[in-house]
Formats: sequence, C-alpha cells, structure tokens
Amino acid sequence: MTREELTLTIQTRKRAEKLTWKQIASAIGAASPILTTAALLGQMRLTDDEAAKVVELLGLGDEERSLLTEVPYRGSLAAGPPTDPLIYRFHELVQVYGTTWKALIQEEFGDGIMSAIDFDMQMERQPDPKGDRVKITMSGKFLPYKRY
Amino acid sequence: MTREELTLTIQTRKRAEKLTWKQIASAIGAASPILTTAALLGQMRLTDDEAAKVVELLGLGDEERSLLTEVPYRGSLAAGPPTDPLIYRFHELVQVYGTTWKALIQEEFGDGIMSAIDFDMQMERQPDPKGDRVKITMSGKFLPYKRY
Amino acid sequence: MTREELTLTIQTRKRAEKLTWKQIASAIGAASPILTTAALLGQMRLTDDEAAKVVELLGLGDEERSLLTEVPYRGSLAAGPPTDPLIYRFHELVQVYGTTWKALIQEEFGDGIMSAIDFDMQMERQPDPKGDRVKITMSGKFLPYKRY
Amino acid sequence: MTREELTLTIQTRKRAEKLTWKQIASAIGAASPILTTAALLGQMRLTDDEAAKVVELLGLGDEERSLLTEVPYRGSLAAGPPTDPLIYRFHELVQVYGTTWKALIQEEFGDGIMSAIDFDMQMERQPDPKGDRVKITMSGKFLPYKRY
Amino acid sequence: MTREELTLTIQTRKRAEKLTWKQIASAIGAASPILTTAALLGQMRLTDDEAAKVVELLGLGDEERSLLTEVPYRGSLAAGPPTDPLIYRFHELVQVYGTTWKALIQEEFGDGIMSAIDFDMQMERQPDPKGDRVKITMSGKFLPYKRY
Amino acid sequence: MTREELTLTIQTRKRAEKLTWKQIASAIGAASPILTTAALLGQMRLTDDEAAKVVELLGLGDEERSLLTEVPYRGSLAAGPPTDPLIYRFHELVQVYGTTWKALIQEEFGDGIMSAIDFDMQMERQPDPKGDRVKITMSGKFLPYKRY
Amino acid sequence: MTREELTLTIQTRKRAEKLTWKQIASAIGAASPILTTAALLGQMRLTDDEAAKVVELLGLGDEERSLLTEVPYRGSLAAGPPTDPLIYRFHELVQVYGTTWKALIQEEFGDGIMSAIDFDMQMERQPDPKGDRVKITMSGKFLPYKRY
Amino acid sequence: MTREELTLTIQTRKRAEKLTWKQIASAIGAASPILTTAALLGQMRLTDDEAAKVVELLGLGDEERSLLTEVPYRGSLAAGPPTDPLIYRFHELVQVYGTTWKALIQEEFGDGIMSAIDFDMQMERQPDPKGDRVKITMSGKFLPYKRY
Amino acid sequence: MTREELTLTIQTRKRAEKLTWKQIASAIGAASPILTTAALLGQMRLTDDEAAKVVELLGLGDEERSLLTEVPYRGSLAAGPPTDPLIYRFHELVQVYGTTWKALIQEEFGDGIMSAIDFDMQMERQPDPKGDRVKITMSGKFLPYKRY
Amino acid sequence: MTREELTLTIQTRKRAEKLTWKQIASAIGAASPILTTAALLGQMRLTDDEAAKVVELLGLGDEERSLLTEVPYRGSLAAGPPTDPLIYRFHELVQVYGTTWKALIQEEFGDGIMSAIDFDMQMERQPDPKGDRVKITMSGKFLPYKRY
Repeated sequence: MTREELTLTIQTRKRAEKLTWKQIASAIGAASPILTTAALLGQMRLTDDEAAKVVELLGLGDEERSLLTEVPYRGSLAAGPPTDPLIYRFHELVQVYGTTWKALIQEEFGDGIMSAIDFDMQMERQPDPKGDRVKITMSGKFLPYKRY
Repeated sequence: MTREELTLTIQTRKRAEKLTWKQIASAIGAASPILTTAALLGQMRLTDDEAAKVVELLGLGDEERSLLTEVPYRGSLAAGPPTDPLIYRFHELVQVYGTTWKALIQEEFGDGIMSAIDFDMQMERQPDPKGDRVKITMSGKFLPYKRY
Repeated sequence: MTREELTLTIQTRKRAEKLTWKQIASAIGAASPILTTAALLGQMRLTDDEAAKVVELLGLGDEERSLLTEVPYRGSLAAGPPTDPLIYRFHELVQVYGTTWKALIQEEFGDGIMSAIDFDMQMERQPDPKGDRVKITMSGKFLPYKRY
Repeated sequence: MTREELTLTIQTRKRAEKLTWKQIASAIGAASPILTTAALLGQMRLTDDEAAKVVELLGLGDEERSLLTEVPYRGSLAAGPPTDPLIYRFHELVQVYGTTWKALIQEEFGDGIMSAIDFDMQMERQPDPKGDRVKITMSGKFLPYKRY
Repeated sequence: MTREELTLTIQTRKRAEKLTWKQIASAIGAASPILTTAALLGQMRLTDDEAAKVVELLGLGDEERSLLTEVPYRGSLAAGPPTDPLIYRFHELVQVYGTTWKALIQEEFGDGIMSAIDFDMQMERQPDPKGDRVKITMSGKFLPYKRY
Repeated sequence: MTREELTLTIQTRKRAEKLTWKQIASAIGAASPILTTAALLGQMRLTDDEAAKVVELLGLGDEERSLLTEVPYRGSLAAGPPTDPLIYRFHELVQVYGTTWKALIQEEFGDGIMSAIDFDMQMERQPDPKGDRVKITMSGKFLPYKRY
Repeated sequence: MTREELTLTIQTRKRAEKLTWKQIASAIGAASPILTTAALLGQMRLTDDEAAKVVELLGLGDEERSLLTEVPYRGSLAAGPPTDPLIYRFHELVQVYGTTWKALIQEEFGDGIMSAIDFDMQMERQPDPKGDRVKITMSGKFLPYKRY
Repeated sequence: MTREELTLTIQTRKRAEKLTWKQIASAIGAASPILTTAALLGQMRLTDDEAAKVVELLGLGDEERSLLTEVPYRGSLAAGPPTDPLIYRFHELVQVYGTTWKALIQEEFGDGIMSAIDFDMQMERQPDPKGDRVKITMSGKFLPYKRY
Repeated sequence: MTREELTLTIQTRKRAEKLTWKQIASAIGAASPILTTAALLGQMRLTDDEAAKVVELLGLGDEERSLLTEVPYRGSLAAGPPTDPLIYRFHELVQVYGTTWKALIQEEFGDGIMSAIDFDMQMERQPDPKGDRVKITMSGKFLPYKRY
Repeated sequence: MTREELTLTIQTRKRAEKLTWKQIASAIGAASPILTTAALLGQMRLTDDEAAKVVELLGLGDEERSLLTEVPYRGSLAAGPPTDPLIYRFHELVQVYGTTWKALIQEEFGDGIMSAIDFDMQMERQPDPKGDRVKITMSGKFLPYKRY
C-alpha cells in the first residue's frame, strides 16, 4: 500500500462517515487541525497514539496505522504551478511577493532563511462585514547562514 | 526602458545611497514596507505622489517616475521552483501544505478561494530565546464560487 | 473512488443512456448547462439535491452522490498547451490577446483582475448565413488590488 | 529592429505622450480598441493608413511604420502558465472549463472547433452595485471537421 | 472504458484477425484510409454506420461502437518532441520549415492560417529507381484574420 | 555575427527594399522559393553564387555572404509547441495524425521512415469558390531500417 | 497487451530461465545481439522466424509472437536526460560533442546528416591492462540534403 | 569575455581566414581534430602551446589565449532534444538504443558504466558504393561500481 | 514484477516485520547500511548471498531474490527538483555550491571529474550540544580527461 | 551591474592576474576557500573587510565592493540537470542516493532534515596509489519537524 493509496482510503472513509477534518483532529486530541490534516493527506506523520485513534475512528487496519506513523515522501502537488484555483493563489503570492520577502527578511535578519521545518501556522476565519476573510499566521525560526 | 531595467537601476541607486527598503518606504510615507518594496521590485505600482518621492530620493528621472505608477506585468521569479533558498522555503510550504490549506479553508468557508488581490500581509520579527522568528500574517478575502 | 474515476463512470453511463449534457442539466433543473457539465466533468460541485437527481438519472450509488457534492481538485487539462484542437483555440486566444486584455482592462478599471470565481458565462449558437458561430459571454467581477 | 523592440518603443512613446490605448485607437479611427492594441503589442498588423497615423501620433519612423503592417510572429506570453495574475485568470478559465466547452460546443454543433481566426471580441464595463464587472463577448465561426 | 483502452483493444483485435488498416478501411467502405485509421487510433470519430461495420469486423461490443462515434479528446502523442523516428521527422519538418511556411503562405494569402480542420490529405507510394518515396498531399482552406 | 543576427538583418533589408521572398528567390534564379526562403531565415545554406546575388540585392557585406553559404544550426522555433497560430496548425497535424502516418506508412513500406533530408516540397494556391486553399506536396525518400 | 507489458514479460521470463541477452540472440540465430536485444526491449521488430524462436525459448504465446514482429512506437527512455548513469554517459557525449560532430561531419561530407536508420553498430570488450574498455563502432550512411 | 563569446569570435575569424577545423587542428599539431574542435567550440581546453598557436593563426589576443586553456563549463546544446537534424540523430540513437546498451554492457562487464571521461573517439569517412558512410569509433574505460 | 513493485513490497514487509534499514543491513552482514538500503530501494544490486538473506528475512520469493541481484535502471526521483524537503536540501547544495565545487576541484586536480561510480560514502551522527548534526563523508576517485 | 556581471568581471580579472581561487581566499584571510569562492561566484556574501581586500586584489571599484557584501539571489545553475560533467555527478548522487539518504537520516534522527544553511563543508585531496580521490565532508545540523 502506497501513501497515496492510504490518502485515498482515508478520504473515502471520511466521506462515508460524514466526518470533517476538524472532527477527526478533535477526536484524536490534536491541538490544531493543520498538522493532523496534513498527516492524513500524506504530508506529515502521526504519533502511534494518534494513528491508533484515526484507525479506530475510520475503521482502518494495521498496515494503515503503521503507515500513518512513518515519515512520508512529502510533496502534495504535481509538477508545475498548481491547477486548483485555491492552491494557485498561494503559488501566486510566492511569484509576486517572493523577491520582496527575501529583501525584507534579509534586511531585518541578515543572511539566512525562514525555516519551513521549525515552523508553526494557524488558520482562522476573520469576520468582516464586506465578506469574511481567511487569516493565516506563520511563524518560522530564522536560520542564519553559519561560517565554520 | 523595461520594468526589469528600472528595478536594476533602483537596486543600484539604493546601494549607492546606502539606503534600506524600510528607509525608502518610510521616506515616502508608506504605512507598510511590503507594498513599497514590491513596487520598487517591479510587482506593484506606486501612486503619483509616492513615485515622485522615490524619484527624488534615488535621483531618478521622468520616465522612471512614470513607469513606477504603471501596473507592471507581475511575476518576480523565473519558471520552475525558485533556486534561492529563502524563497524556495515558501514554495515548499505550498508543496507540503497546499492540499491541507484547500481542505481546511473549503471545509470552513465552502467552495471558493482566498483572494490574493483583496489581500493584506504583515511581516515582523518575533523575539525568541531559542532564536528569533519571522512572523508573517496574511489576510485575504474569501471569495465564494457564485452561481448566476 | 477518485473524482477522475467518477467522471469516467458518468461518461460511460451517459453514453449507455444516450443522454446529452443538456438533457442531464435540464433533468436536474439547472438553469444553465455549463455549471452542471463542469461538475459532472469533475470541476465544480453539485448541491445535494442536484447530486441526488444525477444519481437517479444515471443509476449511480451513494459514494458517487456524496463525491459529486464535494469541492474537487480543479484542473481539467494535462500540463502544457492542450492537445485537443477545440480547447487549444482558447489557449491560443490567451496567448495572442493576453497582454491586450491586461492593457485594456487595467486602463479601464485600474490595477486589479477580472475574477474567475465571481464569474458567469453563457454559450449560445449564433446563426449566420456564412456559417453559424459560437457566442460566449463572460462576466467577471473586477477585483482591485487593495491597500491596507 | 525586432517586433519586440518596436513594442517596447511604442510603450515608451505612449508613456511619454501620456496617451491611453483607447485614445490611440480612436486617433487612428479604429472601431474597437482591441485589434489596435493587439497590433501595437505585436500580435496583429495594422493597415498602411492606420500605421501611418500611429507613426505620426507617437513620433515614430519609417521602419516602425513598415513593421507595423507586417504579420507578426504571434504569441505574447512566455512559455508556461502566465505569471501575471490578470492574465492567469484567463488561463485558469481554460484549465477549469476547457473540457466543458468542448463537451457543450461539440454537443451543439457536431465535431469541429470554434475558430480563433474568424473571430470577434468586445470588452466592456458592466456597472454593478456590488462592484463593476468586466464583460467579454466572443464570437467565433464554428468550423466543422470536413470529409473529402 | 477510455478511448485509449478502446484503441488498445482495436490494435489487439486487428492483430488477432491479421488485418491491415487499409483492409479495415476498405471493409467499412471508407474512401481514404487516413480518416478511418485516425478514428481507430482515437483521433477522429466514425459515422454510426462505419462504427457498426468496425464492430462486426473486429468482434467488438456495444460500448465500443458507441464510443467510436464520439468526438475524442484529440492528441495522439505524449508531451515533448515525439520519440519515434518516423513521427519525429514530421516534427523536424515543422522545426526547420515552420518560419518558411509562415513567410510564404502569408506572403501569398495575406494574414491568416491554413486550416487544420477544413483539411484534406492523401498519402501514396511514389515509385523511384533510387528508392520509393512517400508522397503526402495536404490541402487546407486558407482562413484570413477577419475584422469586425 | 550570429546566424540569428543575419536573419534579422535580411528581414530589415528586405523590408527597406520592399521585396517579397518570391522576388528574392526569383532574382537569384532559384527554382522554388521554399529552399531560398528557408536559407534566408537561417535554416538552409545557399550556393556561393546564390549568396553573392542575395548580397548584391540586399546590400549586404562579405561576412554575410560567407555566412549564408555555411550549414546553419537548424531549428527555427523556440522549445515547446509554437505559439504562432499558422505554425501551430502544422504542429497540431503532427499531434493528431502522427500515429496514423506511422501506421499507414509502415504498413505500406515496412519498417523505416520518410526522410526529412532527401525531401522535396511544393506549396501552391489552390483556387476554390468556397475559399482558396493552401496545397502542400511533400515527397520524402522511404528509408528502411537496415540489418547488417 | 502493450509493447511495454511484453517487454516486462520477456524480462521476467528471461530471469526465470536464467538466460542472457546474448544467449537469446544466439539461440535465434541472430548475427549480432544488438538488434535482437533492442527488439526484445521494444525498440525493433523481429522476423516471423526469430519471433517464433523467442516464443518457444521463453515460453510465450501467440499474441506475444505477433506483437514481436510489429514495428514498435520507438523510444526507450522517459522525457528529459536519462537518470541511469550508464545511459546518461551517452547523453553526456551528445551534450559535450554534439556541435563538434556537426562541425566535422559537415566539413567532411557537406550539408546533411549521418543516418540513424541506415545504420549499423557493434559493441565489444577491448582488453586493457589499466582496465578493460567498451568499444562501440557506429557506421551510418551519410545523407546529403537534396535539392529538387 | 564569456566562453560563448570566444566561440563566436573563433567562428568569425575562421570564416574570415577561410580555414577548416581540420586545418586549424593540423596547424597546431593536434593528432586528432576532434579534441581541438571541441576545445574551439568551448567544450575542452587546450594546452598553453596549442592555445598560443590558435591565437597566432586566428589573430586573437591574450585574454582569448588564456581563456582557451581554462576548463569550460561544458554543455554545447540548449535544454531539450537538439533541434538540429544532424545532432538529433545521435540523440535518437540514445533514445532507441539506450536500454540496449545498458543491457549488453552490464551483461558483459557487470555493474558499472562506460566512462565518458577516460574516453577516446575517432570519426572517419567510410567509402561505400551505395553512398559513403560516417564511421565513429568510441572507446571508453569500463568503470565498475565499487564496494568499500 | 518491476523493480518499483519490488521496492514497494520490501517497504511493506519491512513495516510488517517492524525492522529498520540498519537491522536489515546488519542481518545480511553488510559493512555499511548505505549500499544495502540503496539496493533495497532499487538503486543498487545485492550479491546472491545478500539477496538470499533478504528474501529469508522479509519472507519474499524466488523472483524477488533474482531481481535483487540484477542491475537496476537507476534514478530514485521524479523529474524536476525533488519535492521532499530532506532530499531537496541536497539538491539545493548542488544548486548553490555546484560551480564552486567545479572551480576548486579542477583548480586542485586539473580537468576531470569526481567519479560517482568509484565512490564511497559514510553517514554518521555528530553529537553537538546545539543540536546533533548529520555528517556525510564522500570520497570519489578523480578521473582526468584523457588525451589519446 | 547585476551579480552575474560582477561574477564575470571577477573571473576576467582573476584570469588577467593569474590568480587561483585559493590564492584569493588566502589573500583575504579566509579560513576555507569554499565560502570565498562561492561568494566570488555570486552565491554567498563577503564581510566588508573581505570585500575590500578582494577589490584591492583584483582592481575592482566601489560598486563591486558593495555588491559583494549583499546577499545574492542564489542558484548557480540553469534549470534542469546540469550539463557540465563534474557538476552532473553530484546531481547523479542525489538521483541515485536521495531516497537512501532520506531513509537512513530519518531512521537515525526522526522526522526532519539536514540543514543546508547551518552547514559546513570541506574538500580535500586524498592521495591514493590507484589514483587520488576527492574527499568531501559535509556536516549539517539536523532540524526536527516541530509541533507547536
């Protein structure tokens, strides 16, 4: 069983059980639904305990449980700019603001990068009379280029 | 003069004048340095008034002033994943979390996207004893797919 | 079951039942066949009610009905310019007129885009003695770049 | 002088003369600004008379006049999906609705294509209290696949 | 059943029956084998009558018959230059003579294209003592760019 | 001087002298304008005598004359499907009919290819009351795969 | 059965029978193992007699025998530079020496190509005290560009 | 001065001096014209002595002499399959015979590669009444995968 | 059975047996786990003896054993930059330091390459109070370009 | 002045002054030549002091000095696998061993990556009677995926 097959199975079971990602995350005691959803979509791994709860909730088996705790080969998108409009907008932000982020982060912090590994993220609904907004907060450790 | 040539000229003049992007943004009275820097890097346009101040600050001419107020052909990066490590990390976030963002935003808001046009962003330093962090806050209007 | 498999199933059932897309759209009470056809081809979602009617009409099952109401991962074409001549002609229009559309829309409306989300479209036959014509009318909300 | 250099020259002269594309189209007596703008951006050709007026209006020379009346090598965009958000939205429409257009046009007209050559297009502002809209009307001759 | 699966089935049945493409074309009463072969390879559609004869000749079923009369999603080659030497030579002709065809056709006919839809083609053996030759005759309607 | 620069020079001189490709071909005594035009566009070479006549006709110099007689690095189009509509239609013919040509040529001749080197081509106007047609006749030697 | 499936079957049967490519070539009486191996890997065709012997040797069936005598769609490698180190070295030779081969062959023979169809090749072990060498000898007919 | 500019200069000087690659190789005392031509085309380096002779022969300067002795960044072809027909035929050989070479070399020598660095090559004219042939002999050291 | 299928089987069996790569390498008596793991992931071959032990350890069959001793078609990654963050960092090192490695190795050794075939590698944990480090040591034979 | 132009200038001045990269690194007091060479090739930045010494050593000016201290847009290679054989071998190592590195590092350290930012590297000559070897030692901090 590949991780892609497991992701498809999870989506099928979730559909049959009429669960939301948030309900699954909450059922397994996860603080934030982002990491759990990413794991269920094949991009992160779960702890043994979390995997056991997912398996019970969705009616999966032993191999699925085991696979959920393995580090996956990450990358949720096909090569080239993503075709889905929601995901493309994030790609567009990188295209339009990429060099600006580089200029301002390195002006503020010096030479280095914002870590995508020591990284945290929240997503929330921001009520607005002109139309609610999606608010995303990211926080990544600044890693300076070292000299040895 | 192309917009790329103007961006190169601005970078050269900024270097000669030993200015930072924040100083330029502040000198032209911009609330946030992000939009100004993006405009100076050829991704946004300035108002007539802002362009006039940039031209004076950096010692540019009339064509430069005029070009700074035009809508640019956006896209700051070459085709393919960005080779610069700082910018690549943002590309990686889209690769790893793209399907998760889609799953959670559409679960919360229904079918639609987060606008990258009616969009706002801040970037700030988050002090941390284990190493300071880059904090980015994005807020984009949710646009539902309409039926007519 | 993936959405691609569902699309293939729908095409097979439609063929067996000798139905047209317009007949299916009409049978489920859709005002315009465009959104319905796009949904059946895996690019839009149906309401619960519409999905139920499609399922009955084509003899599908519960999982199909449920999947039809989910937001799909959009993108109906393989990477690269489309190889099918009918679809390629639209790609060609973007290639030839893309910069013209940008120049004229932004001259008229200022900096921003025509939304592809808050968007409506009709397609009709335009009788013409020299050969009938395909008439397509698009209307998308103009979204200005905002400053916050 | 390449056509790309001519396009850049025209953009520079237009900027210096503070003209809009509509003003140029109107000055040369063109019915619709679309074809004229496309020609000035290197995608169509002008008649001798139109080219002469453009040359006078923008202060160009003989080679420019001659080049404006030649059929260009068409294609206004770099390879790959366009990076500019306004133009990308049209690319996205092809991605999302391409197979739907094919299904409905061929259901209505039989096997063939909508011509992108025997083709007409208008663009107009559609006032709307919730935000004005861009309205685009396309009309292309249906060309059936022939049997000889 | 996808059209690709149907093409594979037809090739398998043709092999089992030891038929040539010309024999199949002749058996179904087609004037030229080109269109028939293209249809059997998934690039054109057959009339109901032709499809019925193919189905009988090759021992296929109802779904196959029906699918053969549908307009296919055209494109017989993978992305990128074709790897098969025979087909690559045609790709090479476009690479080497493409700009020449454009220069001479537009010099003779004005601005427009040679239709690939209102198009006819023959292929024949041209005996030659130095080695027989493949002779291909193409005829496509010239379609001028129209002004409306 | 690169061959691309020479091609651009030739196009500029031809424009200034108001010559057609056919007139140039005729002035240098070429039987068919195809090879001459291909050479002037950087895809074939001319004989010393032909090059001398071109140089005189267009007012070029010694290096140009010499370069015109050298074998060029062939390839008149950028990577990827050609963006120009006239040239794209030929690309489309290869896409749609490529496997058909392979099937029929190899059925008739056995395993091998149609040469694109020992190759001849004519292009002519075919008058037609429904609209004149472009007629292209190609003849390439069949080259069988040899066994040694 | 596709040709790729046949190739996989042959590799599986060869493995089970513990045969080498040379043994198979020799068993079917082929002069050189290159053409036979290429055919078994789906790039060439066998004669009826050779195919019959392969079928007997490897325990295959009728469809396999028939398919082995058909001209395949050639191309043994995925798009892009080959990832396998042994095959990549040949790709590297083309990258490094391609323009040199062109310069020297056309200087010696005039304008034309070395045929890859009327082509012969041997591969042999060249004993060497510093390490044995792979010796490859290629011989292809020079095909001059013809003028008609 | 880049190496590409030097290559262009050498081609221009060679043209002006009406020299062949073989004459240049012979004038500088090179045993085989292949390495010398490859160096002059920017793919190999010359010894100090050879570079001095080239500089004198072609009337170049000190920087050219120095640059000719540096190891170049190798790669004589643009990305993607080469568009020039002569060079493409070699690419085609890799496409068609790549897996065969791998199968036979590794069957004969074990796991490893044919070196493209410890490598030698000759090219010669092979007279043949049916048309002369290009004969290429390659010899590369076999490098076995080592275990440490 | 393809090598990719075998790799998937091995990963599934390893998961079921709760083994680590190091335990497998140790069980079959391999000095270093790198080569063994690479072989189990389809990039190297095992000796007959090693393969037999793997087969026993993981409960595989005869075809698996045989396939494990064959030279694979190497290449463990899809085309384009790797999407997995851990592997991408190595790709990034090549992007950032590639030209530096070339400059320094060729300055030290002369013209040639570091062999990736006659090559050895270790990987170890380097304890560090600020966070443990991954230490990788590579040693490849320098292969000079030879002149024959 | 772009960073690419500066790199070219540095290479030209280094050639004229007959300096090696090691001599430059040593002249500016750098501990290891790797970072210095990377900076001079446009991939790292120098300190003010180091830049001043480079400027003096190579006879550069103020803008060059300033540019050398700026963080560059990193990426020393064109898109696609590198064509230069020395650099390609490193790309090949990633292709062949990428999944092995991932398997073993994550088995040893848990989920995370080896940093390419908090990273150190040495390169040295390893004398060997069978041919000297290139020894590369890399050490990168392991960064675990964090949970917040």
